[in-house]
Amino acid sequence: MANIAVLGYGTVGSGVVEVLRTNRESINKRAGDEIHVKYVLDLREFEGDPVQEILVHDFNIILQDPEVDIVVEVMGGVEPAYTFTKEALLAGKSVCTSNKELVAKHGAELLAIAKEKHLNYLFEASVGGGIPIIRPLNSSLTADEITEITGILNGTTNYILTEMAEKGAAFEDVLKDAQDKGYAERNPEADVEGYDACRKIAILTSLVVGEQVDYEKIHTEGITKITEKDFQYAKALKASIKLLGTSKKIDGTFYSMVAPVMIGEQHPLISVNGVFNGIFVHGNVLDDVMFYGRGAGKLPTASAVVSDVVDAVKHKGCNIMTIWDERKNNLGKYEDLPNRFFVRIKDQNTQDLLSGIQEAFGEVSYVKVPEITGELAFLTKELREGDFAEKIAGFDDVYSVIRVDF
Amino acid sequence: MANIAVLGYGTVGSGVVEVLRTNRESINKRAGDEIHVKYVLDLREFEGDPVQEILVHDFNIILQDPEVDIVVEVMGGVEPAYTFTKEALLAGKSVCTSNKELVAKHGAELLAIAKEKHLNYLFEASVGGGIPIIRPLNSSLTADEITEITGILNGTTNYILTEMAEKGAAFEDVLKDAQDKGYAERNPEADVEGYDACRKIAILTSLVVGEQVDYEKIHTEGITKITEKDFQYAKALKASIKLLGTSKKIDGTFYSMVAPVMIGEQHPLISVNGVFNGIFVHGNVLDDVMFYGRGAGKLPTASAVVSDVVDAVKHKGCNIMTIWDERKNNLGKYEDLPNRFFVRIKDQNTQDLLSGIQEAFGEVSYVKVPEITGELAFLTKELREGDFAEKIAGFDDVYSVIRVDF
Repeated sequence: MANIAVLGYGTVGSGVVEVLRTNRESINKRAGDEIHVKYVLDLREFEGDPVQEILVHDFNIILQDPEVDIVVEVMGGVEPAYTFTKEALLAGKSVCTSNKELVAKHGAELLAIAKEKHLNYLFEASVGGGIPIIRPLNSSLTADEITEITGILNGTTNYILTEMAEKGAAFEDVLKDAQDKGYAERNPEADVEGYDACRKIAILTSLVVGEQVDYEKIHTEGITKITEKDFQYAKALKASIKLLGTSKKIDGTFYSMVAPVMIGEQHPLISVNGVFNGIFVHGNVLDDVMFYGRGAGKLPTASAVVSDVVDAVKHKGCNIMTIWDERKNNLGKYEDLPNRFFVRIKDQNTQDLLSGIQEAFGEVSYVKVPEITGELAFLTKELREGDFAEKIAGFDDVYSVIRVDF
Repeated sequence: MANIAVLGYGTVGSGVVEVLRTNRESINKRAGDEIHVKYVLDLREFEGDPVQEILVHDFNIILQDPEVDIVVEVMGGVEPAYTFTKEALLAGKSVCTSNKELVAKHGAELLAIAKEKHLNYLFEASVGGGIPIIRPLNSSLTADEITEITGILNGTTNYILTEMAEKGAAFEDVLKDAQDKGYAERNPEADVEGYDACRKIAILTSLVVGEQVDYEKIHTEGITKITEKDFQYAKALKASIKLLGTSKKIDGTFYSMVAPVMIGEQHPLISVNGVFNGIFVHGNVLDDVMFYGRGAGKLPTASAVVSDVVDAVKHKGCNIMTIWDERKNNLGKYEDLPNRFFVRIKDQNTQDLLSGIQEAFGEVSYVKVPEITGELAFLTKELREGDFAEKIAGFDDVYSVIRVDF
């Protein structure tokens, strides 16, 4: 018998209890032991829900119960999740979590404690919801030097961008619709400003480089400035616009950023639409692989948490090595990252503007959309982010700047 | 130090040696030990290749060397690979392989020996080349009841079908071109008749059901009968034709088959083109996930083999449980599998034919392609394979029958 305690009976927590109940038999078979939910911790009461019988409000009950082998932390946020996780590990309990904020911020430290205590700190659900990506990075792609990891890591923004692309709708309208449907939160900032994707690419990059990548250091742009017109141009270019979290190794250094990017029809992530997520990995011997699935949602996320619980049961007393040192990784400076840019700018109908563009960016490719007048749109060649920023600052009335990956 | 012996210095075997050399440092770090290639077994000589120094022609040298921890079996074929693998396991050596024939035929038995001896028999490279799929099935998708696994599992046929779709070319012409480019073998039967895909879906299904699925029992059709005209209709339907290996759970029973299938633009595998492979999995709580990457090739396949070597080193003395009993799984009868069908039939310009079609298949959807005359093409509703076969046998001059999944 493996006893678990679930911290937090919100969407994911209740999903974990449901998945363990629904697939009880096959899960126990795969774990090689019977998994039993002994406690659920939540400050609230759940009258009428069978969970009420195992509900506790005090974490110390769980902490001090030697029968609890595994703590499932699905509270979200840094505190009190951080304290609870640390205490659980120090008390000899493995921890499985979906908490991306906590993993991004204190993953290295918590992994080190787990390793020292021959326990496991597992976080498959923290990135990509139900998509297996953490475990494949940790135990499948071990023969490769990974040189790029790029993902559509946030389902809310991908839903919004997909709707904008398909319906030609404005950001605000689609956001409102997404909020009405429950795909976006009332306070959508963490999603639409790219903060959520930023934490996730920080976790993935930490696993790839084996060192702590601080998410605060990753240049992050959201999707709030993307307009219908941008999508009209994208369509003319047979491209789409996706919010990508990306880390690339260039001359031995990793560069990370989160930003909307125009990708072409050959890009493996082009067909990842709606609330789905996709994570693309390039290895020096493996070449390209991609993982695709539901990046959020109660049951898919709970499925990933429970797969960690199964792994924790299977690896009782045996740490599944995860190389993620507390040593800080020196990400390359964002300003040095080379990119191509799509630019829309007010058309002054002057030769000066055209000459100015050529002087600043050299040869550019102009893009025309018959229905759009009064502006110039063009694609630059590849140049340093820093150089681009400096040069574009010399222009007035810039409507739009979007990175281009084709 | 972990000593390995590589059996077979062909494409994959030389790839394994190359990957271990190229990424030596990071591989050793991830394995937590230094991996050393002590022997390569091959009947041939390789004058001038550094491998010559560690080349042996007698498997007994490897078998009797207690320093060899892991045997990498990349010979292919059932014998002598089966005997060598069994002897290696019985001698206390873990085995990593890319050999799909052997895994499909004797996987359950070899896994049982490995388990009993606290060793590992790992075969990530046997399906999907470099794509992590075996390990995710074994250790990531453990919280789900998997109800479908469908894959584009053969790069050669996918390349041929993609070329046919894009260039409107004939099967024979594309096959010849693929052979010239080295994408298809001079004797292409195993690929184009679907035998290779059949072994792979047998392995995947065995892992999903946890019992032995005999590939001989899987109804298998190849792509040799697919024509340019079929692709013209597919295009008109905004669909494509892919060779799929598929297993679906219907009313508690798994049904498996390999056949070309018309899939629509919403299908997750629609954008898997060229030599790439994709494997789609549906779980009852996870919903859809897909894995995509290079399904073949020297280095991608070697990358998967080496990831198994790393896992074997990390799990020395500890069997990574793989639920795949020797008990035979009772696959559902192919005749009972429900499918929709696309049918092309000579147009006799008679009311009799139309009435006959309606009588046999009920309401069907006719498909027109302006350039094609003299034939009728239609899509049936879903019906049992057995019923369809019986009914279509009553028609003369049937040009084409392709399953439809949309």
